[in-house]
Formats: sequence, C-alpha cells, structure tokens
Amino acid sequence: MLANIRIVLVQTYHPGNIGASARAMKTMGLTDLVLVNPRCFPDGEASRLAAGAEDVIDSARIVTTLEEAVSDCVQVVGASARLRSLPLPHFDEPETMAQELVVHAAVDPVALVFGRERFGLTNDEIRCCSHQVSIPANPDYGILNLSQAVQVLAYETFKAWRRRPESQYRQPRPTEERQPTREQLTHFHEHLSRVMQASGFLTQPHARTEAQLQALFARARPSRKELSLLRGLLRSLEESPNEG
Amino acid sequence: MLANIRIVLVQTYHPGNIGASARAMKTMGLTDLVLVNPRCFPDGEASRLAAGAEDVIDSARIVTTLEEAVSDCVQVVGASARLRSLPLPHFDEPETMAQELVVHAAVDPVALVFGRERFGLTNDEIRCCSHQVSIPANPDYGILNLSQAVQVLAYETFKAWRRRPESQYRQPRPTEERQPTREQLTHFHEHLSRVMQASGFLTQPHARTEAQLQALFARARPSRKELSLLRGLLRSLEESPNEG
Repeated sequence: MLANIRIVLVQTYHPGNIGASARAMKTMGLTDLVLVNPRCFPDGEASRLAAGAEDVIDSARIVTTLEEAVSDCVQVVGASARLRSLPLPHFDEPETMAQELVVHAAVDPVALVFGRERFGLTNDEIRCCSHQVSIPANPDYGILNLSQAVQVLAYETFKAWRRRPESQYRQPRPTEERQPTREQLTHFHEHLSRVMQASGFLTQPHARTEAQLQALFARARPSRKELSLLRGLLRSLEESPNEG
Repeated sequence: MLANIRIVLVQTYHPGNIGASARAMKTMGLTDLVLVNPRCFPDGEASRLAAGAEDVIDSARIVTTLEEAVSDCVQVVGASARLRSLPLPHFDEPETMAQELVVHAAVDPVALVFGRERFGLTNDEIRCCSHQVSIPANPDYGILNLSQAVQVLAYETFKAWRRRPESQYRQPRPTEERQPTREQLTHFHEHLSRVMQASGFLTQPHARTEAQLQALFARARPSRKELSLLRGLLRSLEESPNEG
C-alpha cells in the first residue's frame, strides 16, 4: 500500500530540498522518489540533508518529463498553493486527499506531485494530474517550504494508512503499569481520611471533601507502585510529631 | 487563540533549524517563538531559512531555562520521539493534542516544546511539561527533523483552530462557475443521443448506454460554459462528412 505511493519532485532548484524531502518521506514509510529534471543532482547537500534516508535518494529515479514519472499511476495529485488555472477536482483538506490516495494505492501506483520552489507546476504539468490538493495555511503567509509540504502530506498519508485495518499498524506503547484493585484503592482512601482527620484538616469524616480528593486521585489513575508511594507518604505523615 | 500558542525550542544546535521552524510556524499562523539557550543565535543561517518569517525570528525571546519559557502557561506539551522516562499524560495523536491545545489557548498561554536535535529533552525539562506528544512515524526510521516536527504539529494546531467556530476561518475558493439548469442538461443529453445514433454507434435509442454516459457527465458537473463547449463539439460532429 505505502510502496505504491510515489513522491514526484519537479525541477527542484535546491538539492537540500531533495534531501530533506527524502528524509520526510522515509519517516512516513514512503520510499518511491522520482525527480523530474532536477537542477542539481546528485549533490552533497541532498545527501547531507537526507540524514539516514540516503537509500531513498540513491534509489530515486530521474526522468525528463512529468508524464514519464506518472504514466502508470491511477491517481496523480498535484500539490499547489497557487490558484488553479484548470478546474481539476480539488481537495481542500490534505486529510481527505490522503484517505482517497491510500484506497487507490492498495491496488495501483499513485503519485503526489510537487512543483518548483518558486513557480509551482506549469499548466502542462497540471494536465498530468487527476487532482489537486492545497495545504490550508495562513492567508498572509501561506507557502510552505517544499520539503515541509512533502512532510505534511506524507504525514497525512501515513495517518490515513495507519487507520486502515489492512495496515495492522500498532501504536508503540510502553508496558502498562499494573493497576491497583478496588480494595487497595479503598484502603488508600481510608488511610488518606485518617491522616486528614489526625492532622486537624477535617474535624470529622466529611463526605464531600473526601469524595473530591478521591476523584482527583482517580483521574491520576495511580499504578500499584504509585499507590505504594502515596501510602508510604501517608505513613510518614502519621508518624511525624505534627500529627494528632 | 493562535496568539496564545507558544513554540519553544530548547538548545537548538543548528541555527538553520531555528529559521526553518520560524517559517513553519508562520505558515500556520503562529508567531510566539521562545529559544532556550540556543547554541548559535542570531545567525545568518537562521535568517536565510526563515525566508519571509524574519519577523518571527526578530521577535523571538531568548531565555536560559525552560522554566522561564513556560512559567505562565497552563498547558505545556513536550514533543518527543523517544521513550518517556516519566509517565506524563501522553497524546498518541497530534490531532487530539491540537484539539485540546486550542481549547486552552482560547483563554491562557500554552506551549509546544521541542528538544535538542540529537538528545531531545532532559528529565528536568520533561518535568516542566504537563503532557507529551509523539508523531506516529515509520517504526524503522521515525525521527523527524526538528523543523519538520514543528511544521507537522503547527499544521495540526492550525487545523484544530480552523475547525473552531470562533476562528471564522474561510477556505479560499475560486469563484464558482455557473451551473446549467436541468432543461439545459436535457437538451445536451438529447443532442448527445442524436449524434450517437447518427454516427452509427447506436442503431436506435438505447436507454442503458445513454443513461451510463449521462451519469458520467453528471459526475463531471459541467458548468454552463463547459456544456456550451460540449454542445459546440457535438454540432461539429453532426456537420462533419462522416456523420449519417
């Protein structure tokens, strides 16, 4: 699915943007990079900014026209901040675009196309696209750096992929701490209550105050270890000369 | 609301990352930048990569500790790819984090904190945070460049803000083309039908084929101008010697 998603950069001016885009792609599981007539490639700047994604750079295909880059694709989404000259189907939200892209990518190659840093895509290049997408941004300053635009669209694409059942993506989670039982919590509540009364904070059992504090601790969801820690603190408070 | 959202960069090593982060922020409507003990700032590289967001760089506050940077904040979200050493409340999804962040930002300052390129945040710095967020990424290569991480989280923050009714954000749209009436569409369908029969493609009215083509054109939602264009084409086909 992700392997079917191609990133195409058209006539990129700064080789650093190629490197940074390769890194952005790889962090989001994308590896198919095609460069249409890059100004300056290969280049040390591209490798330097690729920083661990050199394999993406090294396997990048170089072609002379956008047509060559996307001829086998069933969906070609042009990323453009500028006004569209042709009324292609347009995604206002990268999120919606990504959801459609990954569905097609399950079966056939698809492509996300990025234009030149300053000039975007020509009309002929827009004709190679089936859709356009823009990244909603600050109306006063809305043009993202090329590799940043690649990062954002790759991020939404990876998100859409994660949410597909076929991806079987598992969120990495630290091992869950063991939770206390209701009985252990009750002992803690009683202990807390005794300490509050012994300190003079409560002159008698006060259901509302005790319930509020118990709710606060409930929100924190103390683990067994943390509950032990709290019980230890309560014991020290009980034994200190200020008690009673 | 957006003005209450602060971006804090802790001990950034590469001034270029500061510049690129400022640009990323500004594209997403954020302007409050605080730098904790940057290695090298101000710097030509920072200004160069800020590219139109120099105002964000110029108004950046420089402090020596993270505590100073966030003391007035009611929510401080640490962005970290690495394993958490303290079980702070954690957002697995930047989207969820952003939704909560903008709600708090309606009333009070909040902060998104980014650590050093190589080492992230120290335990003491994590203690200054109320929450942590990670950006779901490729398990084999999941560390985004610092300014890319800023771009992604700023993008989700701007998205969450746009979706709040208070933002009154209006999606820029090109002027809608005028749509044809049902009567005009019917004339088009009849014209198409005549041409198909005259050409020999249909030997008689064929409801199914005609309905399929009409549905195809319906999906394209031709504007009045486009319908005129199609009618003109049909007329040329009718008048050409190959007809009939």
